[in-house]
Amino acid sequence: MNARSAIILDLKFARGELRETIQGFFPDREIVDLADPANAGRDLSGIAYAVVWKPDADLFRRAPDLELLFSGGAGVDHIMAVEGIPDIPIVRFVDRNLTTRMSEWVVLQCLIHLRRVLPYLEQQQKRIWSEFLQPEAAEVTVGLMGLGVLGLDAAAKLKALGFDVIGWSRTKKQIEGMETFDAAGMDDFLSRTDFLVGLLPLTPETTGLYDRALFSRLRQGGALKKPVFINAGRGGSQNEADLYAALADGTLGGASVDVFQVEPLPETSPLWGLGNLVITPHAAAPSEPAALFQLMQDQIGRYERGETLQFTIDRAAGY
Amino acid sequence: MNARSAIILDLKFARGELRETIQGFFPDREIVDLADPANAGRDLSGIAYAVVWKPDADLFRRAPDLELLFSGGAGVDHIMAVEGIPDIPIVRFVDRNLTTRMSEWVVLQCLIHLRRVLPYLEQQQKRIWSEFLQPEAAEVTVGLMGLGVLGLDAAAKLKALGFDVIGWSRTKKQIEGMETFDAAGMDDFLSRTDFLVGLLPLTPETTGLYDRALFSRLRQGGALKKPVFINAGRGGSQNEADLYAALADGTLGGASVDVFQVEPLPETSPLWGLGNLVITPHAAAPSEPAALFQLMQDQIGRYERGETLQFTIDRAAGY
Repeated sequence: MNARSAIILDLKFARGELRETIQGFFPDREIVDLADPANAGRDLSGIAYAVVWKPDADLFRRAPDLELLFSGGAGVDHIMAVEGIPDIPIVRFVDRNLTTRMSEWVVLQCLIHLRRVLPYLEQQQKRIWSEFLQPEAAEVTVGLMGLGVLGLDAAAKLKALGFDVIGWSRTKKQIEGMETFDAAGMDDFLSRTDFLVGLLPLTPETTGLYDRALFSRLRQGGALKKPVFINAGRGGSQNEADLYAALADGTLGGASVDVFQVEPLPETSPLWGLGNLVITPHAAAPSEPAALFQLMQDQIGRYERGETLQFTIDRAAGY
Repeated sequence: MNARSAIILDLKFARGELRETIQGFFPDREIVDLADPANAGRDLSGIAYAVVWKPDADLFRRAPDLELLFSGGAGVDHIMAVEGIPDIPIVRFVDRNLTTRMSEWVVLQCLIHLRRVLPYLEQQQKRIWSEFLQPEAAEVTVGLMGLGVLGLDAAAKLKALGFDVIGWSRTKKQIEGMETFDAAGMDDFLSRTDFLVGLLPLTPETTGLYDRALFSRLRQGGALKKPVFINAGRGGSQNEADLYAALADGTLGGASVDVFQVEPLPETSPLWGLGNLVITPHAAAPSEPAALFQLMQDQIGRYERGETLQFTIDRAAGY
């Protein structure tokens, strides 16, 4: 219990006035913003709470008394990459806004490929009026990998638009109105999938998962002829050399990617030059700072009243 | 009653093998395809049925015994433009497929503007990684003009994605879960609309409706700052010189248009050169010939059994 504990702020994303916004939620607590050079050598002992996105490598050495750690995004791989993570609860960022933004992006990308937006825009530049093959959503099977909060919301919205949706998760899930698969059913799942949508967390198991071997198991000859890869999970799950090759040689008909092995995507990446790929700058579902700080306020309240925390990660599974 | 009447086919769109497809639905009837030069001077008297898209100007003089007329598309303005339309029932093309395709297009275009697809693609060409303002769907009010079968389906799907949706129709409609307006409420409707979606039929009342005066009544300063115009109704409802000016001077922040005053859109149209406009070649909701012929089979069956026809137009309203 540290009812007056300060809060460490180590969020390496520049969105709005973070310090002012968080102070609005915790007017009586000190906020120690590690982005402020004045805090460079500061003693962080005795501080119980921290909210982090890609935390400093020495954070856990400098702050030995942390009791509760908040992730600034839906994933926690940015924390897992740091040495010496203390054995304390880690709370993920789960938010209605983040979920609906992710579903907007997923539905948008599926419709972009279904309705041939890239070739139409290319044609528009050349002032050409001509219709492309454009099957309807019901003729396309979207295979969704990741059936957490984000996956289930995206599935419901894809189905509302008419897509046929099937799902895959590490552990088998029973979901009303959707056929699901687990590791044992991976072959079946991939061979029926026209649009593969990745919403998986980054863990040792998912690192490099989306590679040439996986792309070549997706259905060829569906309504759009070629499969499409859509990733809004984590860049570390995709092999970008393989993605480039699969898009260039026609194993994949198209792709939309919001996350990359290295972000920002280096200017030298050959992915930028592909005409059948949509790139967005890790912007599918931006974390709204106010929603993050509201969640922290709620969970710190629960913690200090001795109630069960919500949205804590499973350390063994890694997410 | 003309249980063995031939059927005139006058469909000026080239999609699939029309004659073979229709014969599959009517194996015992003669199909008189006016696209076949052999039928150029042919006597069409005694024929009771015709299905048309932009029919020949002399069709109704040549076929004086028509009893039932089918439109090859959802609109009938292409028929109303012809002289001497007989006083017989005109059946519109209403089809699940056509409806769902239209909703796919409408939702896609709303998401394209919401999630800034055009500026992101432009940035991608320059290998720039940078996030744009992208409000969420709930912050944007879509004003839907036209609350028939197409409008209601689009409204439901836009709401599933989180958009705030309001509706306008010529005659006031009560629709659960949606605020609606009619002619008397036009000012209110437009001043609250961020994305104007046009799904209106072409009638004398809607000809040239979308003009500079109307664009300037849409909400300025909403979540995306500027309003957006999306038209999948009929090109004759839009003033394209005004549309160009409104997009060029910033009255509109963007637009998506599937229909044009002259189709194909002439190569000389300045609309082709705009960076904040998405052009599709009247492809939002293509008529599937098999679905059209199925509808004809059903309705000719009802007609010949003396039952009430479905989907007939209101001649006074013109749609």
